[in-house]
Parts: sequence; C-alpha cells; structure tokens
Amino acid sequence: MNINELLELINEKAYKQIRTRLVDLQEADIAELIEELEDRDALIVYRLLPKEIAADVFAFLDIETQSEISMLISEKELAYIINELNFDDKIDLLEEMPANVVKMILRDASDKERKLINQFLNYKEASAGSLMTIEFVDLRADMTVENAMSRIRRIGITKETIYTCFVTDNTRRLEGIVTLKELVLSPQEHLVGEIMETEVISVSTTDDQEVIANIFKKYDFLSLPVVDHENRLVGIITIDDVVDVIEEETTEDFQKMAAIEPSDMEYMSMTSFELAKRRLMWLVILMFSATITEYISNENTYLTAQFAILFGVIPMLMSTGGNAGAQSSTLVIRGITLGEIDFNDFLAVIWKEIKVGLYIGGTLGGLNFTRILLLRQDLKLASIVGLTLIGTSVTATTVGGMLPILAKKLKLDPATMANPLITTITDALTLIIFFAISAIILL
Amino acid sequence: MNINELLELINEKAYKQIRTRLVDLQEADIAELIEELEDRDALIVYRLLPKEIAADVFAFLDIETQSEISMLISEKELAYIINELNFDDKIDLLEEMPANVVKMILRDASDKERKLINQFLNYKEASAGSLMTIEFVDLRADMTVENAMSRIRRIGITKETIYTCFVTDNTRRLEGIVTLKELVLSPQEHLVGEIMETEVISVSTTDDQEVIANIFKKYDFLSLPVVDHENRLVGIITIDDVVDVIEEETTEDFQKMAAIEPSDMEYMSMTSFELAKRRLMWLVILMFSATITEYISNENTYLTAQFAILFGVIPMLMSTGGNAGAQSSTLVIRGITLGEIDFNDFLAVIWKEIKVGLYIGGTLGGLNFTRILLLRQDLKLASIVGLTLIGTSVTATTVGGMLPILAKKLKLDPATMANPLITTITDALTLIIFFAISAIILL
Repeated sequence: MNINELLELINEKAYKQIRTRLVDLQEADIAELIEELEDRDALIVYRLLPKEIAADVFAFLDIETQSEISMLISEKELAYIINELNFDDKIDLLEEMPANVVKMILRDASDKERKLINQFLNYKEASAGSLMTIEFVDLRADMTVENAMSRIRRIGITKETIYTCFVTDNTRRLEGIVTLKELVLSPQEHLVGEIMETEVISVSTTDDQEVIANIFKKYDFLSLPVVDHENRLVGIITIDDVVDVIEEETTEDFQKMAAIEPSDMEYMSMTSFELAKRRLMWLVILMFSATITEYISNENTYLTAQFAILFGVIPMLMSTGGNAGAQSSTLVIRGITLGEIDFNDFLAVIWKEIKVGLYIGGTLGGLNFTRILLLRQDLKLASIVGLTLIGTSVTATTVGGMLPILAKKLKLDPATMANPLITTITDALTLIIFFAISAIILL
Repeated sequence: MNINELLELINEKAYKQIRTRLVDLQEADIAELIEELEDRDALIVYRLLPKEIAADVFAFLDIETQSEISMLISEKELAYIINELNFDDKIDLLEEMPANVVKMILRDASDKERKLINQFLNYKEASAGSLMTIEFVDLRADMTVENAMSRIRRIGITKETIYTCFVTDNTRRLEGIVTLKELVLSPQEHLVGEIMETEVISVSTTDDQEVIANIFKKYDFLSLPVVDHENRLVGIITIDDVVDVIEEETTEDFQKMAAIEPSDMEYMSMTSFELAKRRLMWLVILMFSATITEYISNENTYLTAQFAILFGVIPMLMSTGGNAGAQSSTLVIRGITLGEIDFNDFLAVIWKEIKVGLYIGGTLGGLNFTRILLLRQDLKLASIVGLTLIGTSVTATTVGGMLPILAKKLKLDPATMANPLITTITDALTLIIFFAISAIILL
C-alpha cells in the first residue's frame, strides 16, 4: 500500500480495509506511512492498528510523530504503549516528551521502575548508559544447558534479544557470555559455565557511543554488555541501535566538516531560520578569519598596481589550493575516525602529504605554465602561476594532513579541521606565496 | 598483550608463552597484532595458533596480510583454512588472490563447490550476490518446531547464522522466515508454517549494497534473504557484513565529496603516488573550470584599474560564498543518502535555501558593512561588500541545495556535487555579482 492509496481509503472512511491491509505490512513500513499523514489522520490510522502491533509501530515512528500521537491519545492508551515499548525506546521517548507527560508516566510506574527510569534519564546523551536496555537474559554458570533453555523460554518473550545471554554471579557481576547458538548446539546436560566465553569485552555506562560503534565494527558482535565500576552488569547494547549510532555519528561528521553545528533533526523538518542559525556561527568566524587576506592584498598593492595582470589568476590559485588541502584533511579525518591513523603516524602523514603536494603541484603547475604560455605568450606570468601552484599545493596538503591529527591530540574533534577551515588558511598562505614569487620574478 | 610484548616474546623465541597468551584474546585482536608484524614474524605467530581458531583469525586479517600468509604457508594448510572460512569470506579472499592460488583452490573443491565459487566470483562488486553467503538454515513449512530445532542442531554448526531460518518449498522458493527466538519460545508441536512470517522482504542478487544497507537500517534485521528472479532462495546477507558496507559507502561519500576518486584502500597503506593519482583528475578539472574567473576578472579590469581597493575583499567574498554553498550541498547530499530528501522536495529545498541564504547573507552582509564602515569610513565599499554578501549567499545556498537533487535525478551520484564543485561555481558567480554591484555603485 502506498500513501496515495491510504489517503484515498481514509477519504472513503474504509477503516476496516485500512486495518486489513496495514497488518500485512512490516511495522517499519506502517510507521513510514503514518509519518506522512496529517496529525488527525495519523491518529485515526494509528488507532486502527491491532493492540499487539501498535506498540511496535510506535517504536519505529520518528520522535515528532511519537510526540504528536502521545498528546492526542488518552492517558490509558499512552500508558499501555509505553509499557509495551522496549526499555531503551521508552527512555528515548521520555527524553523528548513534555514534563507533564513524563510525570504522568512516572506516576504510573512501579517504585523500582521509576528509580530505573530516573537513573536512565540522567545518563549523558550519546553514552553507553543512554543506549543500553535492561531487557537481557541473565543466566548462572552452574545451570545446565537444559535449565538455561527453559529459563530463556520463560523470560525470553520480554527480552530485546535472547541470542546473547549473560552469565552473572549472585552479586550481578558479569562472569561470561554464552550465545543461544552455543546453547542450542550443546548437549542438554552440559553446564553453562563450561561453554560460556569468559574473555568478555564490555563497556562502562559512561563510554561514548563512538567507542561502542567501533567495538561492534571490529568484533562483529550482535550485543555488548554494559557494566558499572564494580563489573556488575547493568544493561546491554544491541547491534540495531549501533547501526543508528553509526549513521548519527556520520551525519555529525559531515555537518562538522561543512562547518555546520551538528543536529540530529532531519533537514526537511527544520525551518529555514533554524538551519541558518546552525550555519551562521562558523560562517561568521570563517568570514572574519578570511579578512586577513585583505591585509595581505593591501600590503602588496605596490605589486598589483604595477602589474594588473596578476589579479586575474588569484581566484583560480586560491580555489586549487583549497581543494588540494580539503582532499588531504578529508582523507586524514576519515582515517582517524576509522582508527587507521593516530598521533604516531604524524610524521609519516606529513611526509606523505609533502610528496603528494609535489606530485599534484608539479602536474597542476606544469599544465598551467603551458596553458598561459600558449594562450598569452607571457613567460613571467606562466612561471609565477606554475611555481605558486607547486608551493601552494605542498603547503595545502601538508596543512590539511597535519591539522586533523593535531586537533585529535588536543582532544578536539578532527572533523572541525575540514574543508572550510583549511580553505581559509590555505587562501592566506596561497596569497603570501603568490606575492612573494611575483615580487621575485617581476621586480 | 600489546605489540611490544609480542615482539619481545618473538625475540626470546618464547613460542609456547605466545601461544598461551594469544588464545585468551579475541580473534579480532589476534588478527590486529599479526597485521602489525613483519611477514616472517606474522607467519611464525600465525602458525602458533591452535587449528580451531586459526581460520577465525584469518577471516579477521586484512586482505594484504591474508595474501602474504597464503603465499608463505603450504598448499595443505591453505586448503584447510579456506575450507574453514565462511563462504562469503572465502569468496572475498579468492577475489584478491593471484590466479594460481585460485586455480589450486578450485582444483581441490568439489564439483558443486567449484560451480558455486565460479558463480560467486562473477557477481558484480557491491551487489547482493557478492555480499551474501550460502550458509543458512533452511526449513520446511510442514516441519514441527521440534523437528526444526533438531535440524538446526544437526546442521547449525556450519551455518553463519542460525538466528533467522528460511522456510522454502521443495523447489527452493522462499515461503517465509522464522527466527530462532520464535522457535525457542513456541510449543514443540506447532508447525513452522504456522509461526513463520510470510511477508518477507528480500533482495535480488543484482541489488546494490546501498539499497541493502538501507533495508537493514530501516527494519532492524539481523539477516536478509537473497532470491533469484524466480523467488528461489540463493543466499543470505548478515548484519555484520552490512555494517562494513555502511562504513565503506560512507568513506566513499567522504572521498567523492572532497573530489577524490574513491578507493577502499587504507590511507596509510597507499603510496604518495597512488594518493596523488586519485586526487589529480578532479583537481585538474576544477582548476581549468576555475580559469573562468580569470575571464571575468579580465573583463572588469576597467573597474579594478580605477578602484584598486576592490581587490582586497575578493578572496573573503569568494570563500564565504563557497562555505555557504558547501553547507547547503552537504546537508542536502546527506539528506538524499538517508532517504530524507528526494526529487519531490526539489522546490521545497530551493525555497528553504533561498530563505537560509537571505538570513545568512543579511547577517554576514550587515556585519561586514559595519566593519568596513567603522575601520575604513568607506560607505561605498561597505555597501558593495554588504550587498555582494547577500547576493552571493542566496546564490550559493540555492545552487548548493539544487545541484545534488538534480544529480540524483540524472542518475549521477549526488556526492560529486559537493564542496569543491560548488565552490568553483560560486566563485564565478560571486565575482559576477561583485563586479555588477561595484559597477552600479561606483560608476
């Protein structure tokens, strides 16, 4: 069913038919359809869903639509949905809801759950604590495989995953993990303690989501235990949330690398004013930094007043330098993100980029030397442009390769050392090189 | 154990100790240590590993180290490792190996396997066919849960995943999927056909990996069936490979957006010459495109000859326009990648970006108008710069927002419409706007 068919059925008030056709779809697809509807229609369609899939669909909705629906349904309906949500989805929702709704939910929760919710709401955004769920299967090392399986059958239905089970002692300390695959494939009478993996990789509640994403990528895990400072198991993180984290972190990197204040809101749902606000700060900083080129130019008016021909080539030189520098910084920033480059590689990267700058500058300089010589028969200008391109390429690639690593060392985000900043720096350097070479050749 | 401890132990020839300490580590960590060793040492350490983990470690090694080790060990050892690898890892390895090794492996394979390997080697890179594995659990709809579980116990050990099982008819047509969770939680006597999900999302062998990654992101799947044109199940794709795909596609986008020919080789393992080669083509194209600014400048020498003061502000104006345009294109490209923006949003995006341009241009223009008026007491220059910034901001944001969507519509990769190209275009437009406004105000 596509959105137009759905709109038509809503117009015809063919609710029974809508219901029949919706239940055949994947929950994620139902959510996508509902997101495209107006508030009132969204609510009507949402209410048509059978209770057992309504909560699942809710979890797939974006946060705006979740909030809208929460406001419009009765407290009882909302309480039911929230109760059905996985614990991590519940927390995500509560983080976005107005205070009165949060209060209402906390009022209905049991003492134990209220304490848990409050604790989770206090975890820092993007930390392991805020990503994890408490719905995992815990086993004991002295259980037989048969006992473990019957425990899984008993409690598994409410757990987010049963494919990795966590073995703890009676003080909740993590002793090992065992996969459902191992349990299924092992003889019934074996002990969990015999088949569990004891070399467990875990994270702490305060660890950053980027660290967690890297662990999942490296080890191909489906889930990862989160422990407190006494190695007590407090939650688990599952791969589906990590996939979202990877997307989020990537989007953030793209935004930072284009000098935009990062946000996880969708482009289409932001107003122009919000978009402009997130883009202005860096533009202003970069613009004022760029005024340094005015001073460099003004210092050299004695040259340009004499040789007006010099002006025409400046934009091309600056943009080429900027592009070369941005290539270097992009490659190095991505290398740092993927863990391929660290501070120990600093000198190696610089040396590599100097050589890259020479190759690139040599080619670009040679091409332009030839072009200007052929088109304008001006050997001096051709030499100035050719030599400047070599100088500017080497400078730009070196700066572009160096700054992200230095930023990382200074605990700044390397992504901010991207295109716009590098361009601003190379613009100034290009002008300095250009005027210096011009002075030597022309005067 | 870190690399220095390992090197010391190798020096001391303390092989037994190396072995004992290695087996306690995760396979991914062992692989990482081996990758850092020289060829000869890598081989020595690799050979110390117990047979049962050697193949797993091998699968985690990067392709260069895999090739090195493959060359150095005996045919028999290699045959053993390759036999133990998951089918998709096996194919990945074969794709990178020299022809004689591939021949040797094909010689040792059974007829059926040889046919399969040849078929897989022919799938296009980055297609579902090249990503999938044939090691899945297939069930029949008329099996009871009990029978299904005992089939999983029997064949599960050699399968890449047993958490999603695939229900096929006797012509291998896909009828449904059932998760191990459902099997474990269902009564033994139920039929697989009763509990399986029949609304199955599948892909075809020729589908692109980007499409596949988006399906995993949307539906939170752990695996996805791949079918041929007659809906016969030919393989499955698992989430761990998709995480790698997402990284790969992201890296490619970053590279394209910085005007670099994409490559999946690591930065540090490429020579400067290779790096330069991948960066030169676009730099040359952009450089020659940028020479258009020369013509614009030369056309306007009648202005600049008279008013030398104009020159100083050009670099700042161009870089600000470039930055604003790059912000827009980055946001829109990312929006397209995440499926948030498509061609239907074309006009909405343009309208949004015009407004953003006005906000941004108004602020930047106002700030600069004030700055120049205060510092230089030059009302005319202040007005020229202020108005140019408004014009250039609106043009840059509009072009930056428009081109990625147009590229997508023309079946080009939106990522190529990024920073460097947008900057080159806005540079020229900025100059035209600047000279036009200057002419009006000064002449």
